[in-house]
Amino acid sequence: MIYDLAIIGGGPAGYTAAEAAGKKGLKTIVFEKRTFGGVCLNEGCIPTKTLLYSAKVYKTAKDASKYGISCDNVEYDLSKIIARKNKVVRKLVAGIRGKLTDAEVETIAGNAEIKSSDNNQVEISCNEETYIAKKLLICAGSETVIPNIPGIAETAIWTSSEALENKEVPESLIIVGGGVIGIEFASFFNVFGTKVTVIEMMDEILPGMDKELSALLRADLTKRGIDFHLETKVTALQQEGEKQKVTFEKDGMTFETETAKILLSVGRKPVMTGLGLENIQLETSRNGLKVNEYMQTSDSNIYACGDITGFSLLAHTAVREAEVAVEHLSGNKEKMSYKAIPGVVYTNPEIAGVGKTEEMLRSEGIQFTVNRLPMAYAGRFVAENEQVNGVCKILKGEDGTILGVHILGNPASEIITIAGIAIEKKMKADELKAIVFPHPTVGEIIKETL
Amino acid sequence: MIYDLAIIGGGPAGYTAAEAAGKKGLKTIVFEKRTFGGVCLNEGCIPTKTLLYSAKVYKTAKDASKYGISCDNVEYDLSKIIARKNKVVRKLVAGIRGKLTDAEVETIAGNAEIKSSDNNQVEISCNEETYIAKKLLICAGSETVIPNIPGIAETAIWTSSEALENKEVPESLIIVGGGVIGIEFASFFNVFGTKVTVIEMMDEILPGMDKELSALLRADLTKRGIDFHLETKVTALQQEGEKQKVTFEKDGMTFETETAKILLSVGRKPVMTGLGLENIQLETSRNGLKVNEYMQTSDSNIYACGDITGFSLLAHTAVREAEVAVEHLSGNKEKMSYKAIPGVVYTNPEIAGVGKTEEMLRSEGIQFTVNRLPMAYAGRFVAENEQVNGVCKILKGEDGTILGVHILGNPASEIITIAGIAIEKKMKADELKAIVFPHPTVGEIIKETL
Repeated sequence: MIYDLAIIGGGPAGYTAAEAAGKKGLKTIVFEKRTFGGVCLNEGCIPTKTLLYSAKVYKTAKDASKYGISCDNVEYDLSKIIARKNKVVRKLVAGIRGKLTDAEVETIAGNAEIKSSDNNQVEISCNEETYIAKKLLICAGSETVIPNIPGIAETAIWTSSEALENKEVPESLIIVGGGVIGIEFASFFNVFGTKVTVIEMMDEILPGMDKELSALLRADLTKRGIDFHLETKVTALQQEGEKQKVTFEKDGMTFETETAKILLSVGRKPVMTGLGLENIQLETSRNGLKVNEYMQTSDSNIYACGDITGFSLLAHTAVREAEVAVEHLSGNKEKMSYKAIPGVVYTNPEIAGVGKTEEMLRSEGIQFTVNRLPMAYAGRFVAENEQVNGVCKILKGEDGTILGVHILGNPASEIITIAGIAIEKKMKADELKAIVFPHPTVGEIIKETL
Repeated sequence: MIYDLAIIGGGPAGYTAAEAAGKKGLKTIVFEKRTFGGVCLNEGCIPTKTLLYSAKVYKTAKDASKYGISCDNVEYDLSKIIARKNKVVRKLVAGIRGKLTDAEVETIAGNAEIKSSDNNQVEISCNEETYIAKKLLICAGSETVIPNIPGIAETAIWTSSEALENKEVPESLIIVGGGVIGIEFASFFNVFGTKVTVIEMMDEILPGMDKELSALLRADLTKRGIDFHLETKVTALQQEGEKQKVTFEKDGMTFETETAKILLSVGRKPVMTGLGLENIQLETSRNGLKVNEYMQTSDSNIYACGDITGFSLLAHTAVREAEVAVEHLSGNKEKMSYKAIPGVVYTNPEIAGVGKTEEMLRSEGIQFTVNRLPMAYAGRFVAENEQVNGVCKILKGEDGTILGVHILGNPASEIITIAGIAIEKKMKADELKAIVFPHPTVGEIIKETL
């Protein structure tokens, strides 16, 4: 039998494409070597958000007196938190499996290898069987970068995977890498009393996010007891019995510090091996597979979506790319747009941004103006955030077009989509201001800032 | 001196218009007889949301064990909750005063009365002084309807104002009127252990909201111990010492029940007296002032916005109307659009809707299809809502245009704006689906439902 579409990888790109293709009546097969849902669902977005929500509940109970509520003996049980996380993940994985079954998608558990692509047929082998498909979508995802730091192999470091399974809160934790993953874990363990230190090579945490807001978040986390070392390079790791040691360099000086645990979160990279890519010679870029705006690789029968393109490494980008790919292979020509991909960090408070940052606009030589307003201008934010503030920042082009929106303060993640639509639809400030925002909501801050 | 604009009422319509007009350089004066911020800020939206947030903190602490967190002796202190509410209100009122000062708006504390309107001059008197303005904006707001129920004058009932100042949680509470105000208070007092009963004349609570979702919310609140009597009419009230008695009729039968307290929330009506309206003869409609799409009354120099038009009785409608009015009196011709006015009920869980309901579409004879999805399809909803579900419902026209979106589940209030933009901008389902929603967010449910 010849499949219309074979998909390698059952993460957000893979399951989205499979469901969409199945519903369109395409005979579809998906190969997944581990668990459906990919990194996002099994050891990324969803598990971290589940843990972070428990941390939020803990902090809410701890701070309850600010709101006229009292309670004693607030305690956490990390093994219960992890057990709940696993339950949530199982429920959502089952949901995806259910959706694929409903869409009549065939699923194969195993490691798929591409064998060849010619005469409009792609040949894939998995578990010693051969499968033929007219089109192939590769969405094999990404893996944690393990940098070549002296001593790393002999040190029992965590990556995010181990941090998510660990059932005891370490007394101290050094996080190497101040990107989204590092900062979310920093926020999580800090709430439960771990002495957290973040070491970042760049001059600010959360590269890619608005720098001013990242600095404000860092100041807030510093106040809560997290130490940050910016422009700092880790030069050695060492295991000494139960303890771990980190050597780092800053301003030409070398420091050494002891910690109960090290979490490595310096980035992720596309999975480019073990897929049989050597059998088909696709063009690459940015260490990942090169694709056009329809998500086609240099072989027009082969598409690639998600982290493997090395482009965005975000689940929601992968989902949209998968939709675009399936539309294209069904004959529609919708193009992928990267204009309004939101970025979110689920710390407490959250930080979220969409569109351009000031840094990007400046480097692109685009003229812009900045509107900036404290979150306390939104009545609901004041009602729900005692002794907390934040900021909403909107970047507008010369003609009033909204170019970027960046928000620090809960629930930035949920309201950033309002800005995402405005940017994707090239709305001007006046047009967005004319929308009726329900009152009182935190989202009103966008209208107020305009 | 002749003012460019005089405004009667410093609520959401009044302060929005005053700030906007002041910033445009118009010589502006506002008369407010009580406190700036109007009902919304002083005894409506903001105070209730502050109280409801304390209730949410209480419930979060009570239910913490679901998330791996434990705490003992969770207790509330209503006097502290009320004190915090008052502090939040004071802060926000001060914020509005600050904005008006910045915009160089003159403010007068007192009851303004319109004396005349002719020769393009409106004359107003307040505190025995006379003021002349070229244009007048009336936004005197609304007041609680006190129906003519036998015994009501002799019974020490609460309206929302008293309920917001009360410092003790009553053992039992009968709420007469199951609209937004009634249901929000029902949710609040239920959390703190009051035995709450809601009596509503219509066949469902929350008239105007999606009926299916209102029924689901009612079922949820019933499970939490709130009693509902629908299609029921209160025929008498009675004070008996400390106790109060309610007599009501249902299906032709009469019942009598005793309660510690009665809260009356059968609706609000425009304030049409005490303003000197008798001196200028404006056309009326729906018991309020009649306006055109630029918010002009039948006297072209006089505008009216907010509750006094008797139209929407929502703060966010008033704000937008005020913007439209100020634009118009400065020579721009933006029209008021009521197409996408969101409605929100801040119960826990929240319910929010925008655009048409099924009921409206059916009565207007418009063809539509319904997409409906449990909130548990959004991973973040599952991560943050243990043992809770909800529903997202989207109504589409025959050509795929989004006509209405209705959501039961937190934070419906914040994500409904996404749908509001789609409806205001006449977006089709495919267009909204092509927006990249950040993952994981509850807002994704809108994309999933489509």
